Amino acid sequence: MILGKVIGTVWSTRKDENLVGAKFLIVQQLKLDYSPKDNFVVAVDSVGAGVSEVVLVAQGSSARQTTFTKNKPVDAVIMAIVDKLDISVKEKLSAMVSE
Amino acid sequence: MILGKVIGTVWSTRKDENLVGAKFLIVQQLKLDYSPKDNFVVAVDSVGAGVSEVVLVAQGSSARQTTFTKNKPVDAVIMAIVDKLDISVKEKLSAMVSE
Amino acid sequence: MILGKVIGTVWSTRKDENLVGAKFLIVQQLKLDYSPKDNFVVAVDSVGAGVSEVVLVAQGSSARQTTFTKNKPVDAVIMAIVDKLDISVKEKLSAMVSE
Amino acid sequence: MILGKVIGTVWSTRKDENLVGAKFLIVQQLKLDYSPKDNFVVAVDSVGAGVSEVVLVAQGSSARQTTFTKNKPVDAVIMAIVDKLDISVKEKLSAMVSE
Amino acid sequence: MILGKVIGTVWSTRKDENLVGAKFLIVQQLKLDYSPKDNFVVAVDSVGAGVSEVVLVAQGSSARQTTFTKNKPVDAVIMAIVDKLDISVKEKLSAMVSE
Repeated sequence: MILGKVIGTVWSTRKDENLVGAKFLIVQQLKLDYSPKDNFVVAVDSVGAGVSEVVLVAQGSSARQTTFTKNKPVDAVIMAIVDKLDISVKEKLSAMVSE
Repeated sequence: MILGKVIGTVWSTRKDENLVGAKFLIVQQLKLDYSPKDNFVVAVDSVGAGVSEVVLVAQGSSARQTTFTKNKPVDAVIMAIVDKLDISVKEKLSAMVSE
Repeated sequence: MILGKVIGTVWSTRKDENLVGAKFLIVQQLKLDYSPKDNFVVAVDSVGAGVSEVVLVAQGSSARQTTFTKNKPVDAVIMAIVDKLDISVKEKLSAMVSE
Repeated sequence: MILGKVIGTVWSTRKDENLVGAKFLIVQQLKLDYSPKDNFVVAVDSVGAGVSEVVLVAQGSSARQTTFTKNKPVDAVIMAIVDKLDISVKEKLSAMVSE
Repeated sequence: MILGKVIGTVWSTRKDENLVGAKFLIVQQLKLDYSPKDNFVVAVDSVGAGVSEVVLVAQGSSARQTTFTKNKPVDAVIMAIVDKLDISVKEKLSAMVSE
């Protein structure tokens, strides 16, 4: 899954008939320190996520494994809202060297 | 899903027999301010999208979850036409820093 | 789908038993002006494509949705030979700015 | 599969109902010399991996082929803990040239 | 499929129960002139590939379409050993310009 933050909504009237009622959210990808990556994805919400919340996004066929997205043409779904990240201090230090 | 704009059409006579009648559109990927990214994808249209329209594209196996694309060798489908993007002002500012 | 040009062939004697008879073609990815991108993919041919032809390649599970590739371990298939690209002049101009 | 090291945990209370009990680990991608790549993925653990362990992560629909992840909206799973890498000295030298 | 060269092995004792007996090989991605790309993937071997051999790797769900990998959590499989590449001289020249 990728880590991201909900920063907005996509409005669409004309769409696949199975997508009526779908909530398309704009998810900015995040680094581990919550700073934004230069990338975003549009994902369907399945957990009631709102703007500014940090979330996990599952992509590909796995995005269709929720009750709402089943058999629908969506390739990204928000399936968890993040409470916090717990990063090992030791591992964080060595990782930050490369970022 | 990725955000893009339809900028053209691919014409193909010789193709998989299940793709007769498919409309292959060239979709330029977009940033959140609608400026073009340096990337495009060829996607099958399932919602009547036309040139210059901003759309969402679903990729992978999810591209086969529309009535027309089912069981066909296509890995990208336009499944929504975008009316507008609603981006949180606060989040937009912090996101633009990184772009 | 990605846009590419067939530039060669991969010869392989030892391969998965279901791939006997498969034609592995080297497809150089193309930009919209037909200049080469710095990337290639090896794809199975399902439409009789030959060297120098411009083609569309479907990837992932969609690559297994042709008569020949069904249930075979291939993740890229040539499913269309391109006659021509029709790009909106207006959109082409704005797109070229970013390339 | 990608090679990575577990560097932390993602805590999430609100998530897809099928994900109750899932352990979301933060996996930093590694190079062959175990130095960190500038990329990470959040993966569900299926083998009891802990922080600082080097692991393999399977992505996409393959991430749903374990007993725990079956039919769940997850696109990355830790399916092996790495004991060691055995790299051909000759091949390592030529590979390092390009890194 | 991607073109690569087997450069080593990953040893793993603790892994998904369905992966007992799996041979995890480290495959360095190659350019068309056989020089290494700055990328590698860990793939399960299904054709008896050995170190220094040039191979094709299928990824995603297609990696599960061999007798050994069926229904297993693996997202990359070596499904062919390459004898040689046949690249059109004309196309090679224009392609090299961009590399």
